[in-house]
Amino acid sequence: MTGQPLFGKVALIGIGLIGSSIARALRNVPLAGTVVAADRSEAVIARVRELAIADDATTDMAAAVTDADLVIACVPVGAMGAVAEAVGPHLKPGAIVSDVGSTKGSIVAQMAPHMPAGVHLIPAHPVAGTEHSGPDSGFPELFHGRWCILTPVPGTDPEAVERLAAFWQGLGSKTEVMAPDHHDLVLAITSHVPHLIAYNIVGTASDLEKVTESEVIKFSAGGFRDFTRIAASDPTMWRDVFLHNKEAVLEVLGRFTEDLIALQRNIRWGQGDQLFDLFTRTRAIRRSIIDQRQDTADPDFGRNRK
Amino acid sequence: MTGQPLFGKVALIGIGLIGSSIARALRNVPLAGTVVAADRSEAVIARVRELAIADDATTDMAAAVTDADLVIACVPVGAMGAVAEAVGPHLKPGAIVSDVGSTKGSIVAQMAPHMPAGVHLIPAHPVAGTEHSGPDSGFPELFHGRWCILTPVPGTDPEAVERLAAFWQGLGSKTEVMAPDHHDLVLAITSHVPHLIAYNIVGTASDLEKVTESEVIKFSAGGFRDFTRIAASDPTMWRDVFLHNKEAVLEVLGRFTEDLIALQRNIRWGQGDQLFDLFTRTRAIRRSIIDQRQDTADPDFGRNRK
Ligand SMILES: NC(=O)c1ccc[n+]([C@@H]2O[C@H](COP(=O)([O-])OP(=O)(O)OC[C@H]3O[C@@H](n4cnc5c(N)ncnc54)[C@H](OP(=O)(O)O)[C@@H]3O)[C@@H](O)[C@H]2O)c1
Ligand SMILES: NC(=O)c1ccc[n+]([C@@H]2O[C@H](COP(=O)([O-])OP(=O)(O)OC[C@H]3O[C@@H](n4cnc5c(N)ncnc54)[C@H](OP(=O)(O)O)[C@@H]3O)[C@@H](O)[C@H]2O)c1
Repeated sequence: MTGQPLFGKVALIGIGLIGSSIARALRNVPLAGTVVAADRSEAVIARVRELAIADDATTDMAAAVTDADLVIACVPVGAMGAVAEAVGPHLKPGAIVSDVGSTKGSIVAQMAPHMPAGVHLIPAHPVAGTEHSGPDSGFPELFHGRWCILTPVPGTDPEAVERLAAFWQGLGSKTEVMAPDHHDLVLAITSHVPHLIAYNIVGTASDLEKVTESEVIKFSAGGFRDFTRIAASDPTMWRDVFLHNKEAVLEVLGRFTEDLIALQRNIRWGQGDQLFDLFTRTRAIRRSIIDQRQDTADPDFGRNRK
Repeated sequence: MTGQPLFGKVALIGIGLIGSSIARALRNVPLAGTVVAADRSEAVIARVRELAIADDATTDMAAAVTDADLVIACVPVGAMGAVAEAVGPHLKPGAIVSDVGSTKGSIVAQMAPHMPAGVHLIPAHPVAGTEHSGPDSGFPELFHGRWCILTPVPGTDPEAVERLAAFWQGLGSKTEVMAPDHHDLVLAITSHVPHLIAYNIVGTASDLEKVTESEVIKFSAGGFRDFTRIAASDPTMWRDVFLHNKEAVLEVLGRFTEDLIALQRNIRWGQGDQLFDLFTRTRAIRRSIIDQRQDTADPDFGRNRK
């Protein structure tokens, strides 16, 4: 890399977990000349100033994107269309507009109509996160070793895609290019349906009449507490994910339910061998995830680390 | 406590994760005069000797329990009846026989018929574990701050129950007394059904035709990887749990599926408010689990801890 940063001005719209993590990461690597943070909330902007994680911070989205070479929308999926509409007229030709939304087909549909000619819309999704939200929850290492999926539509300038990929690689990510619809199906199984199931079982648990909520909490260490972590994720973000990835989520959910009913039948009829076979098969997947460093091998995620 | 340990001779039958954790913990606290480790496997016994986590180690279960004041069976739930049958005739009057099995109604049914008069059968379940198994996976802090549930049948000598509770408290646990059937229902929701769901979704993921296994592994950081940890648990142990807690598991599973179908419908019809309400309600449960120190508050279980 030369002394020139990859982008002159970078504008981040929405400074929550993801936006503030990008801002923080940009403090450590020479990818941006200036970083402007924009958020609809005055309180968030005040906090961004206190944290000093951007060169400039404003609630004026139009001003933030003016002259920006890269604009990344880091708001809930359901707000992406409104952001695109607000910033569209102020974008400079040649700018790259991207996002970090957890669904991708819907982003293309929402944002593309508002993009002026000469602007490169390249939706992206860093597959990295935690259950926390807001500007204080971000940290610069969030993207390290994680994948960022770019979903350009056909006809997108390959050089612009390359530059955005280089940006995410600079933040520590590995990058992959995928069609938006395929992204949505892959994430339905690796993220969206797991979240739905976690929310669901925590709901089921709190609605049982014969088991008190205090018992559920006390004895959660048996496995349930892992689900509660996921089910503590931001309600707005996740409502939007399910509303904006409906088709893929319903498809995967149909499979999940079908498989679960078969397991239920195995239990009812005492078919231990079928249970044993599935339980053995699933171990192999865990092993691969650890081998590919997508998770820690420490038992219990290292909760007992000393 | 006086200089006297709580029990003279303690025999542990089955030296895997739980048995070896108890053995290791007993090295640090004066609860047992002697600790004898018994396992059906010569290899495990050899390893126990190498690790020096018991005073004596043997494959002879009858010898191990002879003169023991406390016997704890730490084998899979489906093997408890056979262990009880093997050791029954060698138990000394006044001995306490217990276990650590994840189901309790079935333990009573399997073990009680083999108990001679004057022996106190007090089933118990330490609600603590990891996804690993075998004698090398144990560690002495496993039970610290966790609950151990005792499920004596009516008529059990209260003094014996007290002594067993004191034993678990000595290992760092909090104790609770519960009816076996109620235990089984509580654990169905806090542990058994969550495990079943985790196994199931990992199975569903690996069976999808349109998403490759390599994609599932790469992008698992979105939430799925948490499920794979649970779905890496021991197949024998978990097969036995489902076969031996059938009724409660099927009851809770029925509720889970009913609730999931309602959520599916919310998604299909775009009912965002219902989703938002559930996702808000589930956060409160997470907060209580953290407040009661049943889990770490670190985002992502502290995976990003430096
Ligand atoms: N969290 C994860 O694990 C994760 C992982 C990968 C991708 N993502 C995606 O990243 C995006 C941001 O998520 P996050 O976790 O960073 O969320 P977050 O911490 O809740 O931050 C979201 C930000 O968007 C703003 N916002 C919300 N609604 C808005 C609206 N209607 N118009 C304008 N701004 C609005 C919020 O402002 P206020 O403070 O005023 O509400 C906040 O600054 C989402 O699209 C999500 O799908 C999340
Ligand atoms: N793991 C957890 O998270 C957890 C938590 C709470 C309670 N529990 C309960 O604790 C018990 C032990 O689980 P664990 O995790 O310690 O399992 P583990 O690490 O797999 O150890 C099980 C031990 O039992 C022995 N065993 C297996 N089948 C046997 C049989 N038919 N007859 C005699 N011995 C046999 C095994 O010997 P081999 O090596 O020869 O197979 C091994 O030594 C189970 O009842 C389980 O439900 C487990």
